[in-house]
Amino acid sequence: MSENSIGIFDSGFGGLTVMKTIRELLPFENIIYFGDTARIPYGTKSQETVLRYATENASFLIEQNIKVLVVACHTACCLALDKLQELFPIPIIGVTHPAVEQITLLPSTKNIAILGTRSTIASGMYQKLLQEKCPHANITGIACQLFVNLVEEGFIDHPLTTLAIQEYLQSLTSVDTILLGCTHFPLLSAQIQKHFHYPVNLIDPAIGSAEALKKLLTNLNLLRPPSTPPTYQFYVSDAPEKFPLLGEKFFSHPITNVQKIDSSLFSVR
Amino acid sequence: MSENSIGIFDSGFGGLTVMKTIRELLPFENIIYFGDTARIPYGTKSQETVLRYATENASFLIEQNIKVLVVACHTACCLALDKLQELFPIPIIGVTHPAVEQITLLPSTKNIAILGTRSTIASGMYQKLLQEKCPHANITGIACQLFVNLVEEGFIDHPLTTLAIQEYLQSLTSVDTILLGCTHFPLLSAQIQKHFHYPVNLIDPAIGSAEALKKLLTNLNLLRPPSTPPTYQFYVSDAPEKFPLLGEKFFSHPITNVQKIDSSLFSVR
Repeated sequence: MSENSIGIFDSGFGGLTVMKTIRELLPFENIIYFGDTARIPYGTKSQETVLRYATENASFLIEQNIKVLVVACHTACCLALDKLQELFPIPIIGVTHPAVEQITLLPSTKNIAILGTRSTIASGMYQKLLQEKCPHANITGIACQLFVNLVEEGFIDHPLTTLAIQEYLQSLTSVDTILLGCTHFPLLSAQIQKHFHYPVNLIDPAIGSAEALKKLLTNLNLLRPPSTPPTYQFYVSDAPEKFPLLGEKFFSHPITNVQKIDSSLFSVR
Repeated sequence: MSENSIGIFDSGFGGLTVMKTIRELLPFENIIYFGDTARIPYGTKSQETVLRYATENASFLIEQNIKVLVVACHTACCLALDKLQELFPIPIIGVTHPAVEQITLLPSTKNIAILGTRSTIASGMYQKLLQEKCPHANITGIACQLFVNLVEEGFIDHPLTTLAIQEYLQSLTSVDTILLGCTHFPLLSAQIQKHFHYPVNLIDPAIGSAEALKKLLTNLNLLRPPSTPPTYQFYVSDAPEKFPLLGEKFFSHPITNVQKIDSSLFSVR
């Protein structure tokens, strides 16, 4: 059982930032990644639709005999994680709870901003979780939808991105902590920090999520022993040949072994 | 038969700019519009996937007894129109050929730029069609993917859009004609014109497409007589309640009567 893979899914590419962190912390684990590139993005879609997609993705990965499922997409976590945990009989963790845990470990947080997609922020999930853990903090959610597109177009250290950050974050005058509540946003960390003229805590939930996963596998006695090198397998729902091009910006390692899933797997069940 | 509706589909909202023009030119026609909001956008996806989506959308509209199908999405036209015309036994027109016709009617065009989504430009379809009709013109295709997102975020007359236009169009120094090869781009007409310090021909394919449709219906003797007022029906695959919010920016009229289709219609056939 410990030889079985960790399954990770995301709406497309962003979850590779989570996989990268998991790979660093758990270098002997086999990992299967699924990016739903045929239906990307999730961040502008409804709960009903994201739940349907997330359920189909989870089913696909569970059919590959994974030992644990990581939902790497913040929108899918905010809109569907509870339901997935009810539906499927395997351990499932998301990025939302570990992100909130990371913030509670900070020495002092008074003004927290959550940056996410439109659907993540509209769900209010992060706001609710944070308010429970940090009842005295000021919490602001900002939907920074364009950040996703800027990253996917390769505009990182670019005047367009500087201007977009100014546009979306102009109301944040005394924030001390920023939750990067979308897997694309850690790629803009340096630019977001630069916007503020004082140091802010930039929380990348991939770190807490990888640690939570390590803890879970340890407790379940499912850590893979450091024997043979691990395998990494990538599945997508569209354009496998293009996946490495953008994917390697998120993963920071070469991506090979990308397969397109059969779309009949996504017929409505 | 003439009482039957015109069917229009698009990946989401943009096709409403085409419907708006059709409504103005053919004010007595019943129209059924389908926006594939659950799988939007098409402009970053592969031919295989866009063809699958377009086929499903066309099937859905044909089941509603439409008399003619308009493919309002430029990406779907470039990647799937020929195949749809082979597959289905009803008249089907797209926006690509009428757009090229509009350009051939101009008195003189030497330098033509096609602006479109990533997949539209990568397909080379517009470049090929234009080169055939205007063999002596210089033709440049530019993928302006971010324009779609800027329009959907409501950044029209905004410094971010001005800067994005500069970024994407900086190489166009002596262009005389611009084909707005994505249904979102006519909303940026004024900003694109402003970028050039001389007048350029801005071609909105919705106009040629509506005229081509009128000609087709006239030839087939399928024009609806000017009797009772027409009906407009809207279907989407996600979030019907949100559709009017963004949709009305494209349609410039109130949008009511929006229904979500049953997603089982999109099971793989």
